[in-house]
Amino acid sequence: MAREKRKIEELSMWEDARAMIRKAQAEGIETVWDRLEEQTPHCRFCELGTTCRNCTMGPCRISPKKGGKMQRGVCGADADVVVARNFGRFIAGGAAGHSDHGRDLIEVLAGVAEGECPDYGIRDKAKLVRIAEELGIKSEGRSEMDIAGDLAEVLFGDFGSRKAEVAFLKRAPESRRETWKQLGMTPRGVDREIAEMMHRTHMGCDNDAPSTLIHAARTALADGWAGSMIGTELSDIIFGTPTPSESTANLGVLKKDQVNILVHGHNPVVSEMILAAARMPELVARAKDVGASGINVGGLCCTGNELLMRQGIPMAGNHLMTELSIVTGAVEAVVVDYQCIMPSMVQISGCYHTRFITTSGKARFTGATHFDIHPENAMEKAREIVALAVDAFAERDASRVEIPHEPVPIMTGFSNEAILAAVGGTPDPLIDAMKRGAIRGVVGIVGCNNPKFTQDSMNVGLAKALLKKDILVLVTGCVTTAAGKAGLLMPEGAEMAGPGLKEVCGALGIPPVLHMGSCVDNARILQLCALLAETCGVDISDLPVAASSPEWYSEKAAAIGLYAVASGIETHLGHPPNILGSDTVTHLATEGLEDLVGARFIIEKDPEEAAERLDKRITAKRVGLGWNP
Amino acid sequence: MAREKRKIEELSMWEDARAMIRKAQAEGIETVWDRLEEQTPHCRFCELGTTCRNCTMGPCRISPKKGGKMQRGVCGADADVVVARNFGRFIAGGAAGHSDHGRDLIEVLAGVAEGECPDYGIRDKAKLVRIAEELGIKSEGRSEMDIAGDLAEVLFGDFGSRKAEVAFLKRAPESRRETWKQLGMTPRGVDREIAEMMHRTHMGCDNDAPSTLIHAARTALADGWAGSMIGTELSDIIFGTPTPSESTANLGVLKKDQVNILVHGHNPVVSEMILAAARMPELVARAKDVGASGINVGGLCCTGNELLMRQGIPMAGNHLMTELSIVTGAVEAVVVDYQCIMPSMVQISGCYHTRFITTSGKARFTGATHFDIHPENAMEKAREIVALAVDAFAERDASRVEIPHEPVPIMTGFSNEAILAAVGGTPDPLIDAMKRGAIRGVVGIVGCNNPKFTQDSMNVGLAKALLKKDILVLVTGCVTTAAGKAGLLMPEGAEMAGPGLKEVCGALGIPPVLHMGSCVDNARILQLCALLAETCGVDISDLPVAASSPEWYSEKAAAIGLYAVASGIETHLGHPPNILGSDTVTHLATEGLEDLVGARFIIEKDPEEAAERLDKRITAKRVGLGWNP
Ligand code: SF4
Ligand code: SF4
Ligand code: FES
Ligand code: FES
Ligand SMILES: [Fe+2]
Ligand SMILES: [Fe+2]
Repeated sequence: MAREKRKIEELSMWEDARAMIRKAQAEGIETVWDRLEEQTPHCRFCELGTTCRNCTMGPCRISPKKGGKMQRGVCGADADVVVARNFGRFIAGGAAGHSDHGRDLIEVLAGVAEGECPDYGIRDKAKLVRIAEELGIKSEGRSEMDIAGDLAEVLFGDFGSRKAEVAFLKRAPESRRETWKQLGMTPRGVDREIAEMMHRTHMGCDNDAPSTLIHAARTALADGWAGSMIGTELSDIIFGTPTPSESTANLGVLKKDQVNILVHGHNPVVSEMILAAARMPELVARAKDVGASGINVGGLCCTGNELLMRQGIPMAGNHLMTELSIVTGAVEAVVVDYQCIMPSMVQISGCYHTRFITTSGKARFTGATHFDIHPENAMEKAREIVALAVDAFAERDASRVEIPHEPVPIMTGFSNEAILAAVGGTPDPLIDAMKRGAIRGVVGIVGCNNPKFTQDSMNVGLAKALLKKDILVLVTGCVTTAAGKAGLLMPEGAEMAGPGLKEVCGALGIPPVLHMGSCVDNARILQLCALLAETCGVDISDLPVAASSPEWYSEKAAAIGLYAVASGIETHLGHPPNILGSDTVTHLATEGLEDLVGARFIIEKDPEEAAERLDKRITAKRVGLGWNP
Repeated sequence: MAREKRKIEELSMWEDARAMIRKAQAEGIETVWDRLEEQTPHCRFCELGTTCRNCTMGPCRISPKKGGKMQRGVCGADADVVVARNFGRFIAGGAAGHSDHGRDLIEVLAGVAEGECPDYGIRDKAKLVRIAEELGIKSEGRSEMDIAGDLAEVLFGDFGSRKAEVAFLKRAPESRRETWKQLGMTPRGVDREIAEMMHRTHMGCDNDAPSTLIHAARTALADGWAGSMIGTELSDIIFGTPTPSESTANLGVLKKDQVNILVHGHNPVVSEMILAAARMPELVARAKDVGASGINVGGLCCTGNELLMRQGIPMAGNHLMTELSIVTGAVEAVVVDYQCIMPSMVQISGCYHTRFITTSGKARFTGATHFDIHPENAMEKAREIVALAVDAFAERDASRVEIPHEPVPIMTGFSNEAILAAVGGTPDPLIDAMKRGAIRGVVGIVGCNNPKFTQDSMNVGLAKALLKKDILVLVTGCVTTAAGKAGLLMPEGAEMAGPGLKEVCGALGIPPVLHMGSCVDNARILQLCALLAETCGVDISDLPVAASSPEWYSEKAAAIGLYAVASGIETHLGHPPNILGSDTVTHLATEGLEDLVGARFIIEKDPEEAAERLDKRITAKRVGLGWNP
């Protein structure tokens, strides 16, 4: 990290972001980039992952100078053990985030089945029946609510200690499950693996880095194949399975003459109600009473993705746009649930008329307005929140409003169901296109922004480089808005693709980059890979597919990366997790895992180079399958 | 921490320890004290708790200088948020340790019920029936195995997501449960609270220190009233409820002419089998074949406590004696399960003929000999391990053997059942003694050693100071051996007590310090307090009781402290957790919690002063109850 102040052009590739950074600077508002500058250089020990605070004989630091002092913590743990433990807990944090989110959906489903959540229902009854049958629940002649109740019960079981493996694991190819079994990586229960990860990393438990990492992978697999997958499937059942639709993206989606409400966080349970409330005639009328022409609900981060996928709301921005959205001065309320919500948003909201509203008991923010929302009272509270936002409109200071840029059009809604429907109902046409090389491979680009990178430059750079190589790109989470702003989420984006991919997109009328949802929805990509592998009669690690999280920052992103790798999907990261202080851990992540699970991590900060390396993997896999490279 | 090298006399109060530290120094063997010296001074940020590594926008450090730079992490988290998050995860680590241990016992019980674990059985059938009935399981006319199966099922439920509260919570007084309910502190499921703790501390979730701390308390309560309590109760059912017996303690329990095997860790599941194997005639014969006069199984740390309580094995030492025990040169094998096992023991074992043997897949040690033990194969593997130890005897180098000191006698086995039996079957005589002031109060002194303190000086100093004030002391974990070596675990120890306590001990023939077990067995103390409160018709926080962990080091100790406080038991710690970087968190821990849960933490490094403060609490509570102060 250079020590001289970075120019605004280096902070973000986007004009809407740059304009708002300039405005923030002019108004004396501190943003994430200012704080990164203060925090740079970071503590070297912490960056290497060799700091331990797991007991009060320490805290301890392991020196990177081999053979000198401080080679072991007070207990005797060496760099390998400390790094592995820290990484294990990092993964546990990510898996816990996704999975606790998944649990919340089960609770809503159970509440619906028990008639206790009148504001929610079953929007995709066919999917309810399909998933229930898949998990061995009889549906014939039974009421929807009975089926839903049984489904909730089976899935609650995935959060217990009684199962040998989580329910959706049977979606994975037999050979993959055998690999997991051999390695002791089969996820049994979501919470159980998380708790065991915490136990193993207590002083005096797991003191063998590979053993700790294997359990970290098991914990990540519990996230991917249970926590996240449950989150996705139940959200579809409750709120509807996404189908392709059009929307818009960037800060220009904010409306000068409307009450602007931004939903932020990850879970659709509250935000769906906010959207429904905002569409209620009496609240729209109230908005008109205060001089607005209507109520505009925009999305941030993954709650945004959830509502974009299913309801087509416009996307105001991704992670690094969340602070900046408030700086427009045009936001009446930011309504948040949990995860990835910068605490600084409370302070920035306080610089404007913006109401910062928390809705989850799990994510309180000092200084925020809190509404204690449960599935039982959600609609009532949502109405109160929207009313509060409407009333705030009167306080908006027009002289401080600056909404940059026109919004760009995007296409969204590519659930697996929608993708299969687009190609004719079975995966065969997709596999045919892959076999003949029109689509040479598939890469999921997922994850966040990180102020250490010029915002979205890696996300967009990598996507563009892959498209040129006829590699179909799938996006979720914060990469969505990046791809959207770059024009890659529209069929016209196929102009930027290689000839094969361009032809396929043209024939189907789809963009070269498909938006598959929020970060829990990476489970859709897992499921798609499993389906392709099954159809081809091979393991997931044999497919010409890969993953990338170029600008990742969160524990969830690390968990996603690890479940992808453990599922056989080679995964690129734009920068490493804090593991470089251990040769054993670093080698295992970037090399050794290949022998164990048939995939590994690639760490590469140049997007072109990353594209080359992913392409190399895809080419090798094509050769392995006997497909022309 | 002074920068000049501490004298051996400052490292431990015990002669056996000092002799072995001298021997280690002479033989060039590195111990925990050497490493503490290298690691001192510790990183100031980490010590204050203001370092965050929960995402890769960081790592971040919050400066203790208010108003300067680095007041917020890159995400915007301030010192309060960072400290609270770190403390929350610290507690989660401790709760996970105890609770995953508890789960292992449920698995053994379930295996016994299903006939899959022939090496285990139900040693206390009456307790099985009593606990089953307590939890609403009918026992009349049913087979033991059916009852055991149902009990396992109910307790597995405590590790799920479906309960409103864990099963044993009904042991707590109604008023206490109401307090928890009001505060959102009622523990629902053990793993669930741990996973939610990890979720809440992910970037962008809980950004309000009190909210995070309340959930930390909920997580700790799940440990105390479920994870640990299940561990204790099922261990009693499976291995027998302890009754008073005599044994011995200190390094002198090692035998010059015998095969010495030390069991170390926390869980009795494996060590009970090691002990049984060591008593088998064919293995004793094998020992005689190699020239030993027998096989001696000694205990370290909490596995030692488990076997001491139920089988009366001699205790070689507590936490800081674990490395030193090997330095005697007289140990053929250290057999470990999990928790608090210094990784350095592998290296130290390698300096002698000592076999370092791991037995749990959750606690592998690089360089150890691993036996993959499950409840299904435990006895067979235990025999192999004992045979291996016996064979190692031939390699013992007599010239390097030094066993210091004669062992001292101790009394053990004071389960609640045993205590009640000793006082005549009901708590009334105990309460009468308390009312009239013969016993002015009860303090549990628990937890570990920490090389930052002169070993056991605080543990023993506090116990002695309290006894003088007619305060009955209960000990578990590593304080056991400390009290034992100080002569406090024998009836004669009552000579050191005040007149009232001396009289009671004399009348009952019990020591003034009662050994109640391992660190999960602190649940026994919880249960005893609940029983006293119920009998007196008051809340736990109204009782003249308190707790202390003077020389604590582990995450488990912090979790124990927090569940004690949240249960209404004021708790002393000899040094603070890494929270001092946040005024909010520090104030809440040491003051604010009093208003919420009726108890708080006392941080005090002087044992006499700590005794004064605990006495003050006890006096106030006596006054509150209308008992003479
Ligand atoms: S667990 Fe070991 S390395 Fe970590 S703080 Fe404690 S003594 Fe230091
Ligand atoms: S969560 Fe916040 S304080 Fe912690 S490392 Fe990330 S940016 Fe820094
Ligand atoms: S801040 Fe303490 S070691 Fe990094
Ligand atoms: S080290 Fe033995 S109880 Fe903590
Ligand atoms: Fe996300
Ligand atoms: Fe212990």
